[in-house]
Amino acid sequence: MKLLRFGAKGQEKPGLLDAEGQVRDLTGHVPDFAGDGVSFAALHRVRALDVESLPVVNSPGRLGACLGRVPTFHCIGLNYARHAAETGGKPPPEPILFSKAASALSGPNDDVPLPRGSEKADWEVELGVVIGREALYVSEAEALDYVAGYCVVNDVSEREFQIERKGQWIKGKSAPGFGPVGPWLVTADEVPDPQKLALSLSVNGETMQSSNTSDMIFGVAHIISYMSRFMRLVPGDIIATGTPEGVGMGMKPQRFLRAGDVMELSVEGLGTQRQTVLAAE
Amino acid sequence: MKLLRFGAKGQEKPGLLDAEGQVRDLTGHVPDFAGDGVSFAALHRVRALDVESLPVVNSPGRLGACLGRVPTFHCIGLNYARHAAETGGKPPPEPILFSKAASALSGPNDDVPLPRGSEKADWEVELGVVIGREALYVSEAEALDYVAGYCVVNDVSEREFQIERKGQWIKGKSAPGFGPVGPWLVTADEVPDPQKLALSLSVNGETMQSSNTSDMIFGVAHIISYMSRFMRLVPGDIIATGTPEGVGMGMKPQRFLRAGDVMELSVEGLGTQRQTVLAAE
Repeated sequence: MKLLRFGAKGQEKPGLLDAEGQVRDLTGHVPDFAGDGVSFAALHRVRALDVESLPVVNSPGRLGACLGRVPTFHCIGLNYARHAAETGGKPPPEPILFSKAASALSGPNDDVPLPRGSEKADWEVELGVVIGREALYVSEAEALDYVAGYCVVNDVSEREFQIERKGQWIKGKSAPGFGPVGPWLVTADEVPDPQKLALSLSVNGETMQSSNTSDMIFGVAHIISYMSRFMRLVPGDIIATGTPEGVGMGMKPQRFLRAGDVMELSVEGLGTQRQTVLAAE
Repeated sequence: MKLLRFGAKGQEKPGLLDAEGQVRDLTGHVPDFAGDGVSFAALHRVRALDVESLPVVNSPGRLGACLGRVPTFHCIGLNYARHAAETGGKPPPEPILFSKAASALSGPNDDVPLPRGSEKADWEVELGVVIGREALYVSEAEALDYVAGYCVVNDVSEREFQIERKGQWIKGKSAPGFGPVGPWLVTADEVPDPQKLALSLSVNGETMQSSNTSDMIFGVAHIISYMSRFMRLVPGDIIATGTPEGVGMGMKPQRFLRAGDVMELSVEGLGTQRQTVLAAE
């Protein structure tokens, strides 16, 4: 299934994309796609519905993030070898975990306002993994059984805030609009191998990132198993699994986002996002 | 008001502590104390109730975290000068931000299980600040107007996971039970000056930390204003504002938590927590 949320910001309704590419309204059938709303039990109830009986939404309008909120917006750092190299680092010996403020969550095509004082805003196309049941001390072999689905994430990052302002990365990862998620939550049954997905990102039509999840240093199953040694993952948690090479920080000369820039990004089978960068408020 | 949540884990009901120290049941009058449930509008509705008309709960039993969930569990690092010194660091030039996984949230007296492989679990008594309305680009002068209330937080930390496992601190801050919050959310009107609160922590009756929020490097108003330059703070967000000196990592020799240890901690006017450390599952 391709699950989505449509409507004005803060008033999104749950829906799904049917086989003909039409949006069907799930209002009244499911709670919001958030937290336990994307647990396996909840997804099972959606799956049991007769799609043909659901109303077609002819003009769905804006798409919201495919999750209404996230318990924790987890991210993995430096998880593609060539990206680690372009940032001047070595491949990490074990996964680097960090997070975004949950309030950074935004729709896949929402504008991305630059934060005040931003000179080094950057793009990062990533495969997002959404957890479907509680995971604590799970083995790598069973880890994918905890995945509700997958989605596109743009882990928008302000490099000065992230790296030059002391402390931890969250400072540069959390501005409003810095967490576009969607357009769809594609359930795990439609993604037979999360390590064989092309992903790419362009700015103003120029391809900046073009890679494949096969180039991850730590695959999805390893990441989930590893994280579950340090914390309980819960339904609705999202994990942005790292970005491949081609970010602005890694270019010579460096290239950062300016008002008016348009980012387009996609992950194979998971849809496309498109964001316009706005000047600081 | 002193707001609380009582009952078995995952089934807590909202309540308040009345002037006689009795728990009054708020079930049916308010949604859970979480997210918009602790917005100023929501707190205003609680304040309008006639406390005497609310049922007394004679045996409230377990107290849950005073927040049902947190949009983001923010923390400030190295925010007391003597604590920065004991960890071998200098006072940071600007606040260090990090976060805990939201799933670390736990009740003030819940057991704290050591994560598997933990050798360096440590304690951190902190003043917790709970946000009552959206804060983005707010000045220091107006920052306290965004505070719904205050509470005790134990920012339990596994130092090997935090510091020696590469990457970011969240890895050592997020295990189940590592985020005791409460017993009460004390509304801001009852805390005239958050920079004049004694706070202390003992292990097995021996005082380990004893300080005052007057020793913070960056006060609550500065922290909120500063954070709001990098992210939107939202109702129900909690900010653990850093710990004073006296953590186990700073001792010579170092002293870490073992199964059976009992932590007791309090912040002036905000109540007391008591946790027993359990062996790894």
